[in-house]
Amino acid sequence: MGAQLEFWFDFASTYSYLSAMRIEDEAARCGVSVSWHPFLLGPIFADQGWATSPFNLYPAKGRYMWRDMERLCDERGLPLHRPEPFPQNSLKAARLALAVDAQTDRAAFCRAVFSAEFGEGHDISQDSVLTECLRKADLPAESLALAADPAIKAALFEQGARAKALDLFGAPSFVVESEVFWGDDRLDAALSYASAL
Amino acid sequence: MGAQLEFWFDFASTYSYLSAMRIEDEAARCGVSVSWHPFLLGPIFADQGWATSPFNLYPAKGRYMWRDMERLCDERGLPLHRPEPFPQNSLKAARLALAVDAQTDRAAFCRAVFSAEFGEGHDISQDSVLTECLRKADLPAESLALAADPAIKAALFEQGARAKALDLFGAPSFVVESEVFWGDDRLDAALSYASAL
Repeated sequence: MGAQLEFWFDFASTYSYLSAMRIEDEAARCGVSVSWHPFLLGPIFADQGWATSPFNLYPAKGRYMWRDMERLCDERGLPLHRPEPFPQNSLKAARLALAVDAQTDRAAFCRAVFSAEFGEGHDISQDSVLTECLRKADLPAESLALAADPAIKAALFEQGARAKALDLFGAPSFVVESEVFWGDDRLDAALSYASAL
Repeated sequence: MGAQLEFWFDFASTYSYLSAMRIEDEAARCGVSVSWHPFLLGPIFADQGWATSPFNLYPAKGRYMWRDMERLCDERGLPLHRPEPFPQNSLKAARLALAVDAQTDRAAFCRAVFSAEFGEGHDISQDSVLTECLRKADLPAESLALAADPAIKAALFEQGARAKALDLFGAPSFVVESEVFWGDDRLDAALSYASAL
């Protein structure tokens, strides 16, 4: 199997967008294979007493985050459009991502969702947007119905339990064996760690 | 004068330790000169409804931060000893740093304080520790009395007002003209930005 890295992300997370758009290329360069783990930050934030994103709760932090994202997207040649509302409701997108078994297909779908949301400013809670993301990932439009599948709902719930067990508190997070790395800024360190094992 | 960068830090901040120990070398390589700006995060955190460090308020974030610091200090050959209590009361150290006019001397004193605190685990609210830091920076022991000087107290209060005007919400922060960069992870970007002006 070679070196493994788990990529934990919430579709609503801005910095997860940055990682999603580069992780496969960077990992390939390091000989590391990536598994994509959608989860919801909402319940984790709620445990901390937060009813929404910290970027909304703490306005100075929020203003800085958007400026930081502008600079980083500029540097990386990525488009950036702030979606309304922010944060987006990422529940359906997360369920659909989990419903895609093959990691390559899942990755393609996830990139399509992140691009629709932060690259084009679309609302990823909308069926029309998600259907277009399935199409871009060469997945059948009928997959949309899987968002209502009880087994998929249970799988996303289970992801939340695993995230909590891993002591995750934000996204993106990268997990290599028992080592956790938080933030797009730590992707390189996480890959180095994985490839050195 | 050449390119200028303002380094805003709180002595109680772990990631400020990382930046303090490398900023002068990195800045010199980029032809940037650094001004050292101690300030207190306490009032800024209080405005956000926080009575202590977010690393204490949010235990998972706190556990991660200490592990992240261990990894980064290892990589950089820096010692790391967690001071008790955490966060430290940094009021007196911040006042003393402001009382040192020459930036080279101020930088030497600040590095001595950060090393005593996070390198050796000493309590930087103690006069004996601060006196030793003055000695290491080749500053007179009598400077300790300046922590009670009304003009210095006012200067630190003014730093807090400037930090708020700059919309700072954490430390370390790097300010280049009106551009703000937050976190030791952004030091390189801040220096590049400054040297390109």
